[in-house]
Amino acid sequence: MTFVRNAWYVAALLEELSEKPLGRTILDTPLALYRQPDGVVAALLDICPHRFAPLSDGILVNGHLQCPYHGLEFDGGGQCVHNPHGNGARPASLNVRSFPVVERDALIWIWPGDPALADPGAIPDFGCRVDPAYRTVGGYGHVDCNYKLLVDNLMDLGHAQYVHRANAQTDAFDRLEREVIVGDGEIQALMKIPGGTPSVLMAKFLRGANTPVDAWNDIRWNKVSAMLNFIAVAPEGTPKEQSIHSRGTHILTPETEASCHYFFGSSRNFGIDDPEMDGVLRSWQAQALVKEDKVVVEAIERRRAYVEANGIRPAMLSCDEAAVRVSREIEKLEQLEAA
Amino acid sequence: MTFVRNAWYVAALLEELSEKPLGRTILDTPLALYRQPDGVVAALLDICPHRFAPLSDGILVNGHLQCPYHGLEFDGGGQCVHNPHGNGARPASLNVRSFPVVERDALIWIWPGDPALADPGAIPDFGCRVDPAYRTVGGYGHVDCNYKLLVDNLMDLGHAQYVHRANAQTDAFDRLEREVIVGDGEIQALMKIPGGTPSVLMAKFLRGANTPVDAWNDIRWNKVSAMLNFIAVAPEGTPKEQSIHSRGTHILTPETEASCHYFFGSSRNFGIDDPEMDGVLRSWQAQALVKEDKVVVEAIERRRAYVEANGIRPAMLSCDEAAVRVSREIEKLEQLEAA
Amino acid sequence: MTFVRNAWYVAALLEELSEKPLGRTILDTPLALYRQPDGVVAALLDICPHRFAPLSDGILVNGHLQCPYHGLEFDGGGQCVHNPHGNGARPASLNVRSFPVVERDALIWIWPGDPALADPGAIPDFGCRVDPAYRTVGGYGHVDCNYKLLVDNLMDLGHAQYVHRANAQTDAFDRLEREVIVGDGEIQALMKIPGGTPSVLMAKFLRGANTPVDAWNDIRWNKVSAMLNFIAVAPEGTPKEQSIHSRGTHILTPETEASCHYFFGSSRNFGIDDPEMDGVLRSWQAQALVKEDKVVVEAIERRRAYVEANGIRPAMLSCDEAAVRVSREIEKLEQLEAA
Ligand code: FES
Ligand code: FES
Ligand code: FES
Repeated sequence: MTFVRNAWYVAALLEELSEKPLGRTILDTPLALYRQPDGVVAALLDICPHRFAPLSDGILVNGHLQCPYHGLEFDGGGQCVHNPHGNGARPASLNVRSFPVVERDALIWIWPGDPALADPGAIPDFGCRVDPAYRTVGGYGHVDCNYKLLVDNLMDLGHAQYVHRANAQTDAFDRLEREVIVGDGEIQALMKIPGGTPSVLMAKFLRGANTPVDAWNDIRWNKVSAMLNFIAVAPEGTPKEQSIHSRGTHILTPETEASCHYFFGSSRNFGIDDPEMDGVLRSWQAQALVKEDKVVVEAIERRRAYVEANGIRPAMLSCDEAAVRVSREIEKLEQLEAA
Repeated sequence: MTFVRNAWYVAALLEELSEKPLGRTILDTPLALYRQPDGVVAALLDICPHRFAPLSDGILVNGHLQCPYHGLEFDGGGQCVHNPHGNGARPASLNVRSFPVVERDALIWIWPGDPALADPGAIPDFGCRVDPAYRTVGGYGHVDCNYKLLVDNLMDLGHAQYVHRANAQTDAFDRLEREVIVGDGEIQALMKIPGGTPSVLMAKFLRGANTPVDAWNDIRWNKVSAMLNFIAVAPEGTPKEQSIHSRGTHILTPETEASCHYFFGSSRNFGIDDPEMDGVLRSWQAQALVKEDKVVVEAIERRRAYVEANGIRPAMLSCDEAAVRVSREIEKLEQLEAA
Repeated sequence: MTFVRNAWYVAALLEELSEKPLGRTILDTPLALYRQPDGVVAALLDICPHRFAPLSDGILVNGHLQCPYHGLEFDGGGQCVHNPHGNGARPASLNVRSFPVVERDALIWIWPGDPALADPGAIPDFGCRVDPAYRTVGGYGHVDCNYKLLVDNLMDLGHAQYVHRANAQTDAFDRLEREVIVGDGEIQALMKIPGGTPSVLMAKFLRGANTPVDAWNDIRWNKVSAMLNFIAVAPEGTPKEQSIHSRGTHILTPETEASCHYFFGSSRNFGIDDPEMDGVLRSWQAQALVKEDKVVVEAIERRRAYVEANGIRPAMLSCDEAAVRVSREIEKLEQLEAA
C-alpha cells in the first residue's frame, strides 16, 4: 500500500461527530473519533492496547473513553487514566496512539503521519462551507476504488458531459475553453463554456431561465486529495464575478488501497434560504457523485488486475493536463516519503 | 490461470445481444459485446484505452460505441473514430483491442487468442439449434467452479441416475451399455439403457406412456468445452433413428479460474409446436442444470484447497473413460500453448 | 494455519445429528457427520474419493452413505461397500478417511489427528449436561475469529462487567477476588464477588430477591479449547456449596484460521422444571454469547492485519493471568506437534 502519510486528511464531517465515538479507517489505520465533553475532538487508534478491542464501541465515562471489553479508560491524548483491574497500575504500555486533529470549516482533519510535522497552517481553505454568505449542503459517500481514480475524475470536470449527461450536458461543449494554473502544492483547472443553452442543472440554478449563458466549471486541488470546485452560470457576457455559483467540496481520503471516503458539499451564493434549492443540490449529489461517478470508478478499479497483468498504460487526452500534473505531484510526495 | 486461448468460445446467446452492450468476462478478459446497426456483432475489450472505463456501459452513437466516461467513440473493429477533446487527434494508442467474433447457430463465438489463428471452420456444429425440424429452448447459467468440473460432469451422463434422481432415475441402470468413440478434436460417449421403465422425464417426453423403453444418452465433446448431447427414448426394440429425441447444447466458457458460463439448450424433434413441452424442458433445465449440477460442482470447487493441500488424487471409475480422455485432450492443448 | 490436531474437539451437539448428514468443517477439514441406523455416529471426510463431491449431501441407503454424485456407498468406517459402475470393483483407493468419534455428554467429539493417539479417556468431563439433577439449555454459534480470541475472552470472565453490562454488571466489582489453579492439562480461574447487589441476571436467578449476595464465577479450561464455567449466587455469607448455580458449557472448535464454532450450554441446579427459567438462560446466551461477545472478538479479528503489520503486542493486565497460562499451554501443544 502506498499512501502519503504526512498530510492532512478529512476523516469525518463535523455533523458525524458526537460523544458517541465513530469508528472509521483511513490509510489502513482504524480510528476512534469523538467529541469530548469540553468540545475538543479526539482521534485515537481504534485498537485498545490491552487485547485490541475497538475503542469506538466504547462509551465516554467522565469524559474519558472506556474500552468496551475490560474497561480501561483513556483521555483524548490517548493516555490511560483508569485501570479497574488489580492494583490499577497504568504503565506506559497502556497508552494508545492518538492523532493530531483539527476541526476547521466543518471538517475534521487528521494527520496520520509523524505528529512533529503536523502544521495546521497547511490545511487547505474550505471557508465557504461556514461562510454565512453561502448555504452549504453535503454528505458522505463510500467508494470501492483507490482514491486516485476519483482525483483523476475530478481534475477533468469535462467528464460531466458524458457521465452526468442527464443533468449536465451542454450544447456548447465544443467551444469549451480550458486553462491550467500550477501553484505551490496547488493546481487549478479552469473551464469556461461560453454561450450555450443552460444544462438541466444550470436551468434549475437559474430557476428555469433558458437564454444563452456562459458557464464556468473550475476546480482547485490541494495535496493530497482535497478539491474545491466552482460551478457558475450567468447570462452570456456577464463577468464571472457577477455569476451565481456553487463552491463544491470534493475531498477524498483513502480507506484502503482499493476503497476511499468521499466528503462532498455544495456551498452556493444564491437561493440560500430556499429549501427547494437545497433539494436540487442534494439530488444532484446523490445522482452524480454517489451513483454515476461511483459506478464508473468502481468498474475501473475492478479492471486493475487485467490492466496490470497486461501492462496496459492509459492513453492520455488533452483534457487530462491537470489530472496528469496532480498525479505527478502525488507521486512526488510518495517518493519523498519512501526515501 | 491456465486457459486455452487459441480456441472458439461462446460468449453469449444470440438473444442476449442487442445494441445495448453486454459486459461479460471470459478467460479473465472483460468484453463488451453488441450488435451494430448493420447487424454485425462486435466484441471489444471492455476497457477504454483512455482511463479504462467499461465500454459496455456506453451507448451506440451513429453506430459507434461511445465511452461512458469522456466520450471517445469506437467502431466495431476497435478503431477510435471520434475524440471530442482538444484538436480531436486520434493516435493509434486510442484504439481498443477487438476480438474475432462469429455468429452461428444462435450462438456468439469469440476467439480470445491470436486472431491470425482464428478459423471459423473450426467452430463445432450446433446446427440443430436453428434447424426448423427442431424446437429449441435454452438459457444461461453462471457457475462458481472451474469449467473443467462441469466438463467432467457432462462427459459421464450417468451422473443423472444420482444427481437428477427425481427426474432421471431409471430402474435399468445396471444394464447400461457404454461406448467411447475418439475422433480428431472430438470425443463421444454413448450410453444405452435398454428395456427400462421410462424415467419421470422420459415419461413426460412420451406423454405418459409407461411401457418398457430403450433410452439413449450420448454426448459429443469438441474442444475446448463445447458439448452436444442426444437424449432419446423409444418403445423397447425400436431403432435409435426412429426415437424421439432432444439434442442438448451444453457449452461452457471459463470466466475466471474458479467460475464459468454455462450456455444450455434443448433442441427436440417432437412436440415442436407444443408450449407444454417447452415448459417440461425449461423446468428440467432449471432444476437439473442450474440447480442440482451447480450445487455439486460448486461444492467440489470449495474442496479444491483441501484436496490440493493434502495431495489427494481422484480415484477414477469405469464410467470416467470419456471424461478422462477429454481431460487429457485439454491438458494437451494447454501444454501446446504453454510451449 | 496452526492447529493442534491430536486432540478431541466437539464437532456437533447431540441434537444436531441425525440420519441426514451434517456437513461441518473443523480445523480446515470438511466432515460429514451422521448417525447410522444402529445408533453409532460416523464422521467421514466430506470429500468423495472419486470426484470430491460432498458426501454430506448424500443419503443413507441400507445404512450406508451414498455419494450424491455417482452413487458410491460407504460404511461408517469409510470403507466403500458398493460401486454401481462397470464390474463394481472396489479398490482401496475408493475408501474415504474416517475420524475417531465419541458421543459423550450430549456432545459429538472428533479426533482430527493421528487415530492411533485417540484416547477417549482424555475427553474432559461435561457430565452436568446429562445429569438429571440439572436442566440444560444451549445452542450453537458461528464466530468469525480465530478460536483463541474466544479462549482469551472466556478465561477472564471479568469481561462481563463491561461487555455484558446490561445483565451482568455488579456494584462490587472492586472487591473481586481472583485465584488461578494450574493442573495437568487443566487450568481454573476462580472469581468471587462478595457482598454486592445482585446483577440483573443474578436477580432473575433469585427470582427478584435484592438483598446483598455473594457471587462466584469460575471457569475451567481443558485442552485445547473446552471450557466449563460455574456461575453461582447466594445470600451474603452462604457457603459456595449451598449456592444455586449454573454450569456453563463453552466449547470452541476452530473451523478455519479466522473462524470457529461455539457450542454453549447452561446446566442449572435450580428451577429445573421452570420453562420461564429456560427462557432467562436462552435470552442470556443469545444476547451475551452470540451477540455481545461475538461483536467484540470479530472486531479484534479484523484488526489482526494492522496489529501484525505494526508489530503491536498486547499489554497484559492482572486479570489476564489465567488466559496467559492457557495461551502458553496451547502454544506448547502447537510446538509439540510441529516438532
Ligand atoms: S481490550 Fe481494552 S480493556 Fe481489554
Ligand atoms: S475512459 Fe474512455 S474516454 Fe475516458
Ligand atoms: S464423486 Fe462420489 S461417486 Fe463420484
